[in-house]
Amino acid sequence: MADSCASDAAPPPSIGGGSFLIAWQLKDKNVLIVGGGEVASQRIESILTADALITLLAPAKGVHARTKELIDTYPSRITYYDRRFSGPAEIHKMDMVLTALDDVNRSREICEMCRKAKVPVNAADIPELCDFYFGAQIRDGPLQIMISTNGNGPRMAALMKKKIQSALSGREGEAIERVGVLRAQLKERVPGVGGALGRKRMKWMSEVCNIWEVDELMQLDDAVIKKLLDEGWEKDCVPTLAQLNGQRKRNISRRAASAVSSDPNQWLPMIGSFALGAACTMLIVLARKK
Amino acid sequence: MADSCASDAAPPPSIGGGSFLIAWQLKDKNVLIVGGGEVASQRIESILTADALITLLAPAKGVHARTKELIDTYPSRITYYDRRFSGPAEIHKMDMVLTALDDVNRSREICEMCRKAKVPVNAADIPELCDFYFGAQIRDGPLQIMISTNGNGPRMAALMKKKIQSALSGREGEAIERVGVLRAQLKERVPGVGGALGRKRMKWMSEVCNIWEVDELMQLDDAVIKKLLDEGWEKDCVPTLAQLNGQRKRNISRRAASAVSSDPNQWLPMIGSFALGAACTMLIVLARKK
Repeated sequence: MADSCASDAAPPPSIGGGSFLIAWQLKDKNVLIVGGGEVASQRIESILTADALITLLAPAKGVHARTKELIDTYPSRITYYDRRFSGPAEIHKMDMVLTALDDVNRSREICEMCRKAKVPVNAADIPELCDFYFGAQIRDGPLQIMISTNGNGPRMAALMKKKIQSALSGREGEAIERVGVLRAQLKERVPGVGGALGRKRMKWMSEVCNIWEVDELMQLDDAVIKKLLDEGWEKDCVPTLAQLNGQRKRNISRRAASAVSSDPNQWLPMIGSFALGAACTMLIVLARKK
Repeated sequence: MADSCASDAAPPPSIGGGSFLIAWQLKDKNVLIVGGGEVASQRIESILTADALITLLAPAKGVHARTKELIDTYPSRITYYDRRFSGPAEIHKMDMVLTALDDVNRSREICEMCRKAKVPVNAADIPELCDFYFGAQIRDGPLQIMISTNGNGPRMAALMKKKIQSALSGREGEAIERVGVLRAQLKERVPGVGGALGRKRMKWMSEVCNIWEVDELMQLDDAVIKKLLDEGWEKDCVPTLAQLNGQRKRNISRRAASAVSSDPNQWLPMIGSFALGAACTMLIVLARKK
């Protein structure tokens, strides 16, 4: 293919064209939100997830019901002022600014002030002025997932979100929490940072996560954790949950039983087929009798 | 439950404890990476995804093979200096700084300089100094997904990534691209920003994405797009792909057929039940005869 490149070399493999997806830390940081409509209410919820302190500027007459509800519910997190944005002085102590205004020109001005003050900014509906974009989000305790279509529409992001949600059981967050407790108790039992021991600890934890299913990791209560550390870590191996419980066979047979009984869609056709088989045979017998 | 809160009011519903997941925009921005080891090579790859311009500082003797390969492959994107970080002057023109050093104290110093200069910074292995964290990433063209366990270990993030990947067909990126083309052609046909027309366009696009499956959206080539705009947008409706192709009935019957024939696990038990029904009836008849 013809290439406008001056060099004769093949063009490098393309890996660009995307965004830099990150988990921004906002705990007790100051975030300014300008505007109080429906979009602002969505912004407030995202920001509250990250434990930030919000300053909200919006004339009361334009404040959405959901925004009002959030202001009332989180008074220690949201400081609300019933007025418009007044100028650059509002920005200086901020760690992040979000605008959600109908007035595009005012949004542009605020973005310019933020850029000068080196404060990260997002302006709703003006992508070219944004330091960062939002995406569809899934939250399950410590598990957070973001889906970005890189500007190809929120609808497709929502579709992808639905697809991903259907692949998750909704108990992954709990499993992640239990693994966190296991890791903490292992560190308590074998303290120290880095080195050969740190690597051994990390490798053993990895193996547990590889061998145990999500539903099994959820069962890591204090008793199971103690047993796993005693029978696993101390003996330099990773037993399965079934091995730990000494009920491998029972577990398997329970699983086989549930495979038959859990889903009516599975056994209804079988009953139908049984009846059909019986009926056909009866018909043949009756036909022969005549 | 007892609460240390001074107020009598019920505590607000907890939605905190998470991060603020965002898609940072780095196109042609300046990113400084300090260190050239394996971790640095992973950072470089993430940053290249977002089309940034990288300045890399690392003495040649510590440069990892993968880092070297990236320097050689993307000379227009990576400016490499065979030396250590020299001081605050290196930071001033940067939009972001990432350190990947074994020297924790040096990393801390660089983070402090960045904070003073209001430049976002991530220091590998020193979470408390980071403005942002990384997560497990999935990329499929315009589709990007990030999975964060909020510090509960990369292993669980990798597990979740595997689970999510297995729910995706790997063709979602292409479907998103095709929808982007459809949206562009609709805008070309009915130009204008915002207003009632903008809302109507957005609503129609949403309906297409809701009604069409991912595998169908992938089939939006130029001919299908033209047909969909002619038969759908112009007539104020959203036909299915099957309707567009004039093969609605054929499609439905194909789907019904596949529901029976695709999975042996579905019809084997039914054959067994049929045989069992027949056998039982035969036995009853034979027993009666005697």
